[in-house]
Amino acid sequence: MTLLKQINSPIDLRKLDRSQLPQLALEIREEIVDVVSKTGGHLASSLGVVELTIALHYVFDIPFDKVVWDVGHQAYAHKLLTGRRDAFPTLRTRGGISGFPKISESPYDAFTTGHSSTSVSAGYGICCARQIKGEGGKVISVIGDGSLTGGIAYEGLNQSGPSQKNHLVILNDNEMSIAKNVGALSSFLSRTFSAKYLQDLKGEFKKLVKSLPKVGDDIYQFAKKSEESFKAFVTPGMLFEAFKFEYFGPIDGHNLEHLIDILENIKKLNKPVLLHVMSKKGKGYGPAEANPVYFHGVSPFEKETGNSVKSKAKIPSYTDVFGRAMVDFAKKDSRIVAVTAAMPEGTGLTTFAETFPDRFFDVGIAEQHGVTFAAGLSTQGLKPVVAIYSTFLQRAYDQILHDVCLDRHPVIFAVDRGGIVGEDGPTHHGLFDIAYLRPLPHMVIMAPANENELRRMMRTAIEHDGPIALRYPRGSGEGVPIDETAPALPLGKGELVREGNDLLLLSIGTPLALCMDAAEHLAKMGIEAAVINARFVKPLDEDLITAWAQKTGHVVTVEEHVKAGGFGSAILELFARDGLFQVATALVGVDDLFVEHGTREELCELHGISTKGIMDTALRLIGKPEAISLLESTGQ
Amino acid sequence: MTLLKQINSPIDLRKLDRSQLPQLALEIREEIVDVVSKTGGHLASSLGVVELTIALHYVFDIPFDKVVWDVGHQAYAHKLLTGRRDAFPTLRTRGGISGFPKISESPYDAFTTGHSSTSVSAGYGICCARQIKGEGGKVISVIGDGSLTGGIAYEGLNQSGPSQKNHLVILNDNEMSIAKNVGALSSFLSRTFSAKYLQDLKGEFKKLVKSLPKVGDDIYQFAKKSEESFKAFVTPGMLFEAFKFEYFGPIDGHNLEHLIDILENIKKLNKPVLLHVMSKKGKGYGPAEANPVYFHGVSPFEKETGNSVKSKAKIPSYTDVFGRAMVDFAKKDSRIVAVTAAMPEGTGLTTFAETFPDRFFDVGIAEQHGVTFAAGLSTQGLKPVVAIYSTFLQRAYDQILHDVCLDRHPVIFAVDRGGIVGEDGPTHHGLFDIAYLRPLPHMVIMAPANENELRRMMRTAIEHDGPIALRYPRGSGEGVPIDETAPALPLGKGELVREGNDLLLLSIGTPLALCMDAAEHLAKMGIEAAVINARFVKPLDEDLITAWAQKTGHVVTVEEHVKAGGFGSAILELFARDGLFQVATALVGVDDLFVEHGTREELCELHGISTKGIMDTALRLIGKPEAISLLESTGQ
Repeated sequence: MTLLKQINSPIDLRKLDRSQLPQLALEIREEIVDVVSKTGGHLASSLGVVELTIALHYVFDIPFDKVVWDVGHQAYAHKLLTGRRDAFPTLRTRGGISGFPKISESPYDAFTTGHSSTSVSAGYGICCARQIKGEGGKVISVIGDGSLTGGIAYEGLNQSGPSQKNHLVILNDNEMSIAKNVGALSSFLSRTFSAKYLQDLKGEFKKLVKSLPKVGDDIYQFAKKSEESFKAFVTPGMLFEAFKFEYFGPIDGHNLEHLIDILENIKKLNKPVLLHVMSKKGKGYGPAEANPVYFHGVSPFEKETGNSVKSKAKIPSYTDVFGRAMVDFAKKDSRIVAVTAAMPEGTGLTTFAETFPDRFFDVGIAEQHGVTFAAGLSTQGLKPVVAIYSTFLQRAYDQILHDVCLDRHPVIFAVDRGGIVGEDGPTHHGLFDIAYLRPLPHMVIMAPANENELRRMMRTAIEHDGPIALRYPRGSGEGVPIDETAPALPLGKGELVREGNDLLLLSIGTPLALCMDAAEHLAKMGIEAAVINARFVKPLDEDLITAWAQKTGHVVTVEEHVKAGGFGSAILELFARDGLFQVATALVGVDDLFVEHGTREELCELHGISTKGIMDTALRLIGKPEAISLLESTGQ
Repeated sequence: MTLLKQINSPIDLRKLDRSQLPQLALEIREEIVDVVSKTGGHLASSLGVVELTIALHYVFDIPFDKVVWDVGHQAYAHKLLTGRRDAFPTLRTRGGISGFPKISESPYDAFTTGHSSTSVSAGYGICCARQIKGEGGKVISVIGDGSLTGGIAYEGLNQSGPSQKNHLVILNDNEMSIAKNVGALSSFLSRTFSAKYLQDLKGEFKKLVKSLPKVGDDIYQFAKKSEESFKAFVTPGMLFEAFKFEYFGPIDGHNLEHLIDILENIKKLNKPVLLHVMSKKGKGYGPAEANPVYFHGVSPFEKETGNSVKSKAKIPSYTDVFGRAMVDFAKKDSRIVAVTAAMPEGTGLTTFAETFPDRFFDVGIAEQHGVTFAAGLSTQGLKPVVAIYSTFLQRAYDQILHDVCLDRHPVIFAVDRGGIVGEDGPTHHGLFDIAYLRPLPHMVIMAPANENELRRMMRTAIEHDGPIALRYPRGSGEGVPIDETAPALPLGKGELVREGNDLLLLSIGTPLALCMDAAEHLAKMGIEAAVINARFVKPLDEDLITAWAQKTGHVVTVEEHVKAGGFGSAILELFARDGLFQVATALVGVDDLFVEHGTREELCELHGISTKGIMDTALRLIGKPEAISLLESTGQ
């Protein structure tokens, strides 16, 4: 029986002898690689913190002590050690365990995470609440150096330090965010010196300070501060001591002995401590160590080689098509520049970055800054393209509104992962972007029905003199041919794709294929549905839409987005404004709930964004609900 | 003729002799105090930077060189010196000049501001664009120490420093944000030492380093870095040098000679520089120096005394009623804690802070952190009330969604300044909150029709076990009596306020009074309008609303909010879902545009949130547009 199999909770872990822990680490790594090779997931980050996770559970009394995992993609070892070993093979599958910490999943998960840089704030909140309630216990925030580039982490440190609560922040430093880390902080963290020089210098400095003439009282305080700060200013601790955290480190994040020793010592300190741990992303699995960016978030792979088991898709993804359009268009238009928030790979900008290094800006995990920075670029006549996933763009909401839209700056938002993303689950679905962008004056919002439209919409965006967002989903395109010349689409114009007199299926984005499919099935039932590809959420093609709405009298709007405030809602507002009260309208989209994790296909099906879901809504709307049972019996 | 009268642009300023500048500063202060005493405005901040503004325009070639004023409430002197002297008395009045820098108002305004902490990012964007375009020129970001607590400022510094562009960041340090500044950064900035000690120590340290045995190559580099950093670690420059800005200061922000000398020197440096300027908020006007918090944003006052010219309103403001409810309820419920983002006064929490200092948290201008921190507090059984203005809550959008709603944490959002705020204009109106909060699963949204409902809704919020937002406007309540016992309102239940068979006026929040007024006028025309006070945007009182919608067949929704995605939009979604296609619905609210500045009353009138606007919409809806001309002739 392996050691891991004996551990049903951290209590079992603490029964092990220290000498057994490296073996346990090995077993945990094997289990993680084994499962993730089948399910896909965030491999490299989780492999990097195996020893740290063991040490934390070995030293601290979790869940009495609380640990908040920043982003949370590194929590697989934590899950294996906290009663979820048997469930672990269900990782990221529908009904199985989440890829992220989740309060509802386990009492060992102190805070639900998924987005970056929140752990200091949440951890500090827990500290304050415990003090108010007179409770004890250490609160631990584990944050990567990448996450530390996010402003909210700095806001949290700025408040937590001076308040001197029992808060341990562990900086897990692998010199990476998702891509290679950027910014002043990053180069600063690598400013390490050997311990011997440091000791020598400290001693000498102490003597020097003592030998100085004492003039007045404050020289002693000054000297004391100087001595304290001395360690800091030649080590990465400088910053954290400025924030009134006691700094320890950097220490080797894969040395269990050192980790446990230092955590035992820190356990006794009742004040803000920052422990700087150096780790290696992908540690212990060759392919991931060699390519941590690829193995950050990975689809199923062959364990032996690390090669993807998916046959290389022949149809390029929307992300790929966006990336290629950027390079193609930028060659002929020197105004085009690109901004990413630590995701050059994920957003398809790698080739752009290589081709136009001076026109490519990776701002780190700093979406707020990225958007306002882009606004600044645009004031000087450039055409910044800000490529951020839908869910992360939420971070920059005020900046989009206040710094871009208010002055109608021509910033282009390439909103990738718009819609259901699948296995990453509720923290990562991009289901709110239409609703949060639509109320903003001056904003244009497009969504392509296929990859050729995406390319054309990129052209449209570049030719447009104002803020414009382009929303497209995760995954492969529709396989349509791509017109390399990519003429711009007329602003605010949709496309009638199919005629029909009985009802109108009004689609935004890639659900168009589902609408066409539904229309064909309906036709077999003798129901003729017109289909419109709206292309624009804002401005709407009012003439086309109202004409066909009036012609058919029945409209079903279809979107991969929540219903509240979305595309369908915009259509209802249009009909109300124009007094089209005789048109019956129904919405297909996600109801008022958070969509859990699972494959994109099964989740879309589950939430009615499917041929069947559209037909079901359409048949009810036109008063033929009896046809639904027919529909079900034929398996549609 | 005064000096100020001779200055029509900075070119005229640069013709003056240095010796004349103090006189000019005096005149500018007089003009600012004179105008703001009549118009109201951001007095203290603008008085604090008069010398800095003169020095910047004297030394730099603005607008070729660019200056970005963070927040922008300190830009009055800048406006006076850049061609807006004659228009200055129209400050903050409808059609007059804005209280903030605005690109559309003047070529001297490089970036439109209003919200905090954006100047570094925007300024850095301008720097990068200029480099790409091969243009020169200094870009200057002027940021207060309060604004520096905002995470986006840190994100900006983290990127700007290492890239070594021609970027000057001026830290205007008055040891204040809007209230007294908070956090580690604040105490750190005050860590100054006398220049003599510093010089002595530097010299000694240099000798020490030279005398150390040289072991290996890197000792030289080390020593060099040590020497460079030495200045930093005993001065506030430590942080900024870590971010690779060259640090100068702190210098006296009211000494024109010093300011001009140092800016002349910095002008020659083509790299990131941080100039630390110490200034006094309210400088030169006694009442404002004595009470900078009151004179941060002030209504018209008597110039001689500083006393408000408004007769003390007898009706308490919504903010006051909120603040009192917090104190009253917190006395009996120890779970209640309060969170503000640098606005204890503005949000009405001063008494709470005094009464419950251990349960009050001012997080600084850090809305993101404030919300996630509150989520952390709530996980331990507390009831955090996050009081943030509607427009600033936009900063924390992702945190509301991801850190609060996803796990259904019982965080209460007191969304003050929901609606049109008046003179502060488009950067400050709270017109988007319903639209951005409504799509979030688990969120409850309320808006009181009067101050008594506000108090009862606070109770409702405290009793509710999940995220809940309470939106209320700027200004005085309706003057209704307040039930001190404040029983909770039933969740998701509205109130039928008036019966009528011809149409339904469906109101959310304080426009209820307008609806009642409109209903009375309509009654005189023989049209009987029912009126519902919806109270809840989410969940809607579906039974009540659909029953009266069906009864009347005509619904006019009324909200002080944009139409897109707002309350009316929610009603349309409800009717679509329930198949109420026979109900004709029209929306009263703000159209798809940014509302400019002016008094709240004139702006509400202008955008149809008025008795007349409601009647107009109602008469058109029920097919009696001919009554509108009647309406106009009677002056309604």
